[in-house]
Amino acid sequence: MRPLFVVLDGADGCGKSTQARMLSEHLQAARGVAPVHVREPGSTVLGERLRAILFDRSLELGPEVELLLFAAARAQLLRELVQPALASGRDVVCERFHPSTFAYQSVAGGMDPERVMQLLLQHANTPEPDVMVVLDVPLQVALQRRGAASDRIEAKGDAFHAKVIEGYRVWAQRHARTRLVDATSSPEIVHAAVWKAVSDAR
Amino acid sequence: MRPLFVVLDGADGCGKSTQARMLSEHLQAARGVAPVHVREPGSTVLGERLRAILFDRSLELGPEVELLLFAAARAQLLRELVQPALASGRDVVCERFHPSTFAYQSVAGGMDPERVMQLLLQHANTPEPDVMVVLDVPLQVALQRRGAASDRIEAKGDAFHAKVIEGYRVWAQRHARTRLVDATSSPEIVHAAVWKAVSDAR
Repeated sequence: MRPLFVVLDGADGCGKSTQARMLSEHLQAARGVAPVHVREPGSTVLGERLRAILFDRSLELGPEVELLLFAAARAQLLRELVQPALASGRDVVCERFHPSTFAYQSVAGGMDPERVMQLLLQHANTPEPDVMVVLDVPLQVALQRRGAASDRIEAKGDAFHAKVIEGYRVWAQRHARTRLVDATSSPEIVHAAVWKAVSDAR
Repeated sequence: MRPLFVVLDGADGCGKSTQARMLSEHLQAARGVAPVHVREPGSTVLGERLRAILFDRSLELGPEVELLLFAAARAQLLRELVQPALASGRDVVCERFHPSTFAYQSVAGGMDPERVMQLLLQHANTPEPDVMVVLDVPLQVALQRRGAASDRIEAKGDAFHAKVIEGYRVWAQRHARTRLVDATSSPEIVHAAVWKAVSDAR
């Protein structure tokens, strides 16, 4: 069975980390090898240093600068971890990818979507994910699960985060490799839907 | 007199910092106001944090990732320091700019020059410099002035740095706002040539 590059994405509080853990355990049980589980931005030394910058509430960064830093973290992640993992036959589970950039920097942040996508496709797109699962929750559920805003991006306010959620839905409509999964139910029910989306991609 | 945005560029060891100091003092004497003197990457909080990453010898960064980080530092510098300085009537003296990216990441680093320039022109090009002065020195002079390699980029070896110097010459041939200045002479003689290039731009 060829290895899969699976992205789990969605707004803060949608349940990505829980679902990524459940998916990783299920993939390990099914294939006998643990997938490589990474998160964006992060997982590499560079990515974690950029993550600290991007979430630092003392910095004022425009969406332009955010976009370039997210792209740099992603390019490094693909080159340093995702490509070697797939080459060695291991699945990859990645929390956040292009849908996040589209939702946060373009739909909510106001950047032209064509410029955003051109940058990502030119500089941070090899390899491409086999399937992107977007976990969809209403704003109130997301805010409740997330708790108090703890970093520079979470602190952008409810109107911003409502646009983020809408941005993910627009992304899902436009991209064939993306599945929008209702994530308001229990973790087990959501996991079943995630597992089906991943199995269909295999 | 309208304020000028002046770039001083050239290989490690060409004498940029010395010339930037002399130019700043001369501009202050001539205009009665000190110019804003910045360096790339750096000068902003973000820029200095990215500079520390870019020059960190423990990190392995591809030219793709370097390019994105340099562009992010530049976008922030333009927005946070250069635009406000010019708007308030102050000149800006900036060490390094697009010619460095072209020379290091494209000519020496191997990235397609069109991709490099497209990224910079789209994401880090407002405002544009009034004049870019490239200080040209032979490799042996540059290496001697620079001393032992002290960071990740200086450590790339002589063949790399020979290409960097060639890259600056190619840039100067292609760009009308760039002046190539022979920087092998004494600081005072080089400064006279820099001053003439800046005065012509006024």
